[in-house]
Amino acid sequence: MGWAIAVHGGAGDIPLNLPPEIRQARETALKHCLDIAVTALQATHGHSPLDVVELVVRELENHPLFNAGLGSVLTTDGSVEMEACIMDGNTKKCGAVSGLKTVVNAISLARLVMEKTPHVYLAFEGAEAFAREQGVETLEPSHFITPANVARLKQAKEADRVQLDYTQPIKKEVEVETPDENGDSQLGTVGCVAVDGDGNLAAATSTGGLVNKMVGRVGDTPIIGAGTYANTYCAVSATGRGETIIRGTVARDVAALMEYKGLSLKEAAAYVVKNGGPEGTFGLIAVSATGEVAMPFNTAGMFRACATQNGSFEIAIH
Amino acid sequence: MGWAIAVHGGAGDIPLNLPPEIRQARETALKHCLDIAVTALQATHGHSPLDVVELVVRELENHPLFNAGLGSVLTTDGSVEMEACIMDGNTKKCGAVSGLKTVVNAISLARLVMEKTPHVYLAFEGAEAFAREQGVETLEPSHFITPANVARLKQAKEADRVQLDYTQPIKKEVEVETPDENGDSQLGTVGCVAVDGDGNLAAATSTGGLVNKMVGRVGDTPIIGAGTYANTYCAVSATGRGETIIRGTVARDVAALMEYKGLSLKEAAAYVVKNGGPEGTFGLIAVSATGEVAMPFNTAGMFRACATQNGSFEIAIH
Repeated sequence: MGWAIAVHGGAGDIPLNLPPEIRQARETALKHCLDIAVTALQATHGHSPLDVVELVVRELENHPLFNAGLGSVLTTDGSVEMEACIMDGNTKKCGAVSGLKTVVNAISLARLVMEKTPHVYLAFEGAEAFAREQGVETLEPSHFITPANVARLKQAKEADRVQLDYTQPIKKEVEVETPDENGDSQLGTVGCVAVDGDGNLAAATSTGGLVNKMVGRVGDTPIIGAGTYANTYCAVSATGRGETIIRGTVARDVAALMEYKGLSLKEAAAYVVKNGGPEGTFGLIAVSATGEVAMPFNTAGMFRACATQNGSFEIAIH
Repeated sequence: MGWAIAVHGGAGDIPLNLPPEIRQARETALKHCLDIAVTALQATHGHSPLDVVELVVRELENHPLFNAGLGSVLTTDGSVEMEACIMDGNTKKCGAVSGLKTVVNAISLARLVMEKTPHVYLAFEGAEAFAREQGVETLEPSHFITPANVARLKQAKEADRVQLDYTQPIKKEVEVETPDENGDSQLGTVGCVAVDGDGNLAAATSTGGLVNKMVGRVGDTPIIGAGTYANTYCAVSATGRGETIIRGTVARDVAALMEYKGLSLKEAAAYVVKNGGPEGTFGLIAVSATGEVAMPFNTAGMFRACATQNGSFEIAIH
């Protein structure tokens, strides 16, 4: 037993020779997230795991090196469409948003959907209208479009000339995985899962989606049971190729294997990463009610970090 | 073994004294769906279950008495936002759409997303743009707005004065369940699941959503694993209160209980309907690879029908 926290910053075909400045900047950001989370979980009047996962994902959304919030990748028409999801394990209450163009912290809007509406999921214009009504921080859409992501889109389009040829979806899916020259995964997402010393669990995920995605494309992140899930057994956040994660109901399956088959967290997570989709497509982070952590992936790498009350501490990429 | 087909037209608080003309019209429509499906499955060069579920759901979308397609209920601003999802059990390929305002058969657009794009899920303007690109049949948005649904929205708003008071979501969730005076569920959806004699499975669901829903609200229907799911064990389509179905990952859980706990279809479906959410919230239809059928619900009623190769035939409401 004891608290535990895990964070990811995306999984994909991350090369071993990642430029040191990129590696270091990301590792520093993940370390900073752990610090924030551990401080919050250890406080005498500690924050709930739900607060902690929201806090951490906000940090990563505000960091331009991760594919979420201010670092969101671009759709095929050069726009940003962000999505996020948060879930509380005890109550299974959850909130999700898609298609955001102006909201600085999609994860906090997802929490507001959960807490202030009778719904679970708001998307596109309705989600933007709700953001305005709630008074959350917004910026002009152009503010989310970074030069790095403009370059990334250009590169993806050059590598992927069949983008608009819908008769060849398979070819495109393969090509779209090619990492850019910075070794930066185009399949990135950010996520956080946390459990406190009483076994309360929460999960949160946020993303800009897939580089060069079709306008209107929804990925796994906002889909309860795909990219994000929490119940009383575990909390899970997945990252990678969204379409694979949706078909594999990845996050729910980790929990279902514990609930219905009696597997441990590590066994369940390993099973899903092995059987939930083809090699090279996704990874996940998960914590159990008893404070175990699992961070398996079937891609070349996954930006990840974890800390537990019993002293485990890890920041790793490959 | 043998083929099997099940269809639903929504679950909810359907009164026992449903007006005979409504009962009869709906039963006739469900019977017609069974006829179409059985003919297709029995044909020498039979259609695949994927074809069959699409065909049946199109029929129900075209019928103004069901909450999907031309019978779609209205959002709080009086607009229509339709959603649909289709999934093939063997490949786990799937397609989903949300936020459609002009597409006559959302289910067929979902299938095009599955077959003609590298994505699983397109929503709102991007989905509408894709519909135009694919040349599917569309109509002016006003064409989907029936007088019956205008009256239904008015009634829901009158019964539900806290609609815009987001500080009281629980009260609203309860109130929104009130059936209208025609005994018509406001929680309706249409869906179909089918298996052929070789055990190939498919599921499809389509809906206008929830009367008086917030603009941008996404329900369970397009969420793989919530309202719709198929694998090699079974195919499932759920209907009822979408938010409950999402939190309960209802459709995936039926399949997961078979896959991970070894339950039969009937046991798995009964377990999920009992444990997946509060009484009075949802129902589901499911068929297994071996041709079993389950149609449990925890609401007062569910418009449903099924037929199997071994001679079962049922059309029922309560």
